Amino acid sequence: TGTDTEREHQHLRYNPLRDTWVLVSAHRMKRPWSGQVEKEEEDQVPQHDPNNPLCPGNTRANGEVNPDYNNTFVFENDFPALQPNAPDPGYNQHPLFQSKAARGVCKVMCFHPWSDVTLPLMTLPDIIKVIDKWAELMVDLGSTYPWVQIFENKGAMMGCSNPHPHCQVWASNFLPNEATLSDRCQREYLKTHGEPLLLQYAKMEAERRERVVVQNADWLAVVPYWATWPFQTLLLPRRHVQRLTNLTAQEREGLASIMKRLLTKYDNLFQISFPYSMGWHGAPTGPYLKEDQFHWQLHAHYYPPLLRSAGVRKFMVGYEMLAQEQRDLTPEQVIHLGNSITATYAIYKHR
Amino acid sequence: TGTDTEREHQHLRYNPLRDTWVLVSAHRMKRPWSGQVEKEEEDQVPQHDPNNPLCPGNTRANGEVNPDYNNTFVFENDFPALQPNAPDPGYNQHPLFQSKAARGVCKVMCFHPWSDVTLPLMTLPDIIKVIDKWAELMVDLGSTYPWVQIFENKGAMMGCSNPHPHCQVWASNFLPNEATLSDRCQREYLKTHGEPLLLQYAKMEAERRERVVVQNADWLAVVPYWATWPFQTLLLPRRHVQRLTNLTAQEREGLASIMKRLLTKYDNLFQISFPYSMGWHGAPTGPYLKEDQFHWQLHAHYYPPLLRSAGVRKFMVGYEMLAQEQRDLTPEQVIHLGNSITATYAIYKHR
Ligand SMILES: O=P(O)(O)O[C@H]1O[C@H](CO)[C@@H](O)[C@H](O)[C@H]1O
Ligand SMILES: O=P(O)(O)O[C@H]1O[C@H](CO)[C@@H](O)[C@H](O)[C@H]1O
Repeated sequence: TGTDTEREHQHLRYNPLRDTWVLVSAHRMKRPWSGQVEKEEEDQVPQHDPNNPLCPGNTRANGEVNPDYNNTFVFENDFPALQPNAPDPGYNQHPLFQSKAARGVCKVMCFHPWSDVTLPLMTLPDIIKVIDKWAELMVDLGSTYPWVQIFENKGAMMGCSNPHPHCQVWASNFLPNEATLSDRCQREYLKTHGEPLLLQYAKMEAERRERVVVQNADWLAVVPYWATWPFQTLLLPRRHVQRLTNLTAQEREGLASIMKRLLTKYDNLFQISFPYSMGWHGAPTGPYLKEDQFHWQLHAHYYPPLLRSAGVRKFMVGYEMLAQEQRDLTPEQVIHLGNSITATYAIYKHR
Repeated sequence: TGTDTEREHQHLRYNPLRDTWVLVSAHRMKRPWSGQVEKEEEDQVPQHDPNNPLCPGNTRANGEVNPDYNNTFVFENDFPALQPNAPDPGYNQHPLFQSKAARGVCKVMCFHPWSDVTLPLMTLPDIIKVIDKWAELMVDLGSTYPWVQIFENKGAMMGCSNPHPHCQVWASNFLPNEATLSDRCQREYLKTHGEPLLLQYAKMEAERRERVVVQNADWLAVVPYWATWPFQTLLLPRRHVQRLTNLTAQEREGLASIMKRLLTKYDNLFQISFPYSMGWHGAPTGPYLKEDQFHWQLHAHYYPPLLRSAGVRKFMVGYEMLAQEQRDLTPEQVIHLGNSITATYAIYKHR
């Protein structure tokens, strides 16, 4: 069958959200690995560290003192990559030397007052508070900024330098590349096929079942057919929802629950606090709030760096950077690997 | 002036080779770093290791014995991501589940019989032999395959698991994403502006001088205006040359010399054997050899992972993966930093 052929041999798969292809090799995991091995564990993380600028009651770099917060806490990034008042570098330049103004804000959002928890170890009510705060920030920043990127870098391997559970929210006066690309692909798909791309995709994956990691009444997490990172997942609502702000109370509860299950499964896979970068994509905001965005479906991408074990990552290097992304096992093989991994309780406990 | 504004504040720059934008922040290098620090050095590398499958005279995983080679040596990758006879997964599938056949070959090319040298530590005649072998492989594999990707992953940080100086050559029956994108951008630029994009770009950078790292009569290496990696460079011929195979003997000599200077400068920057992934892009081959490829200009991209020091890399993570690539210093600041770094002799010697 076509599926067996795909499982056993190299082939290309199309990513309809990015209009690119990924090279899928089924058996490259077998090659011996004598390359770099990651440091597996940080030192024991205390629940409260008086020197950690993200903990309640502590003083940050700019002299501000954090409140004694009980659930989430949001503040401005002290070293922002985007600022509200950056000057205009001047338009209408040579086509090979074009620059544009970049304005925005960068916020940091703590998930919990304790440093020694992560989302999968938090209670459902506390995860719901995170989701509610995300939606609140989308309303606030999205009222003027066209794009508000919520993202979490988790783990030292993903450039995260603070173990305290947190994410970042960067709002910009421009649509970033990935947003522009995803917008174009979803728009064209609706035009050609008459249904929003990701709404149709979620339905088909729910029927086919072979790439589903976890699901509930309102949500579905799959290793997408076109996954590039070995354990990449795509988290999708079943209903047509354009933005985080449009989620009902029930959908927020369902989201908290599926996030906890997905992330518990990740932690249990290699029995570590699983590193990843994740982020939300939804219909653009600001001036786009007044436009038709029917082609958009809200979703979150999870991009974990690991390949074989807690210590061996997938290097997206030479061929991937210069030519095309390449993966060493099929998405269906990931599901097979993960089937025995529980999603209901944490085997791995964060220290 | 516009340039000062750019140097001091966030702005976006356009990458005309990829039709994307990069977010440039001038002062993010200042933020304190308490995140992951890379292991700085591997163990001492012996000139000849009887267990290294890349050394002359040794036996590889498949039982083959390497010849007693004196300069370059090419063999088939024992764990290839591409194979010549992979079956067809079947076309005309659902638009959300599209796959295609991927066929090709993966070769490994050793640069030198010794494990304890790198390109910048090799003699010019030996580097010319590498260039000649690259051109030879382009002729052989390019006679049938539309794309032949020559790339080098250097250093453990770039997923390289063998210290012996080598690169890889992956030929495919398809144009990879990056090739397709670059082809489209160069084609459209020629159509709109009447001159090949990179030919015009090299001329303008040679005049402006503010982003030139090293140059000679036939070649120019710049930190491109749109660089995403902190120390990214673009190596360009001055003449209009579409493929490696079209380089004259003099241009090959000039290339050997400029590569040695560029890579010596890299090594001297942080006084380590500088890690990077690099690769060549030229006009497509195989069936494209018969078509007009005037829009193409041969070039090499160098993508080094480091940011602040030998131990601190740039993490292209959350915002970069989900939204847009972001850099923490301007390309002009890189030149400023690098001005005092010599390109003529190695301060850093590989152990
Ligand atoms: O082929 P190698 O050197 O074993 O592997 C390295 O380069 C490949 C091509 O860029 C990547 O796919 C691998 O992740 C990387 O570890
Ligand atoms: O903002 P942080 O956590 O200091 O920095 C981290 O995330 C940023 C956004 O993805 C990246 O640009 C940095 O390279 C990374 O280290």
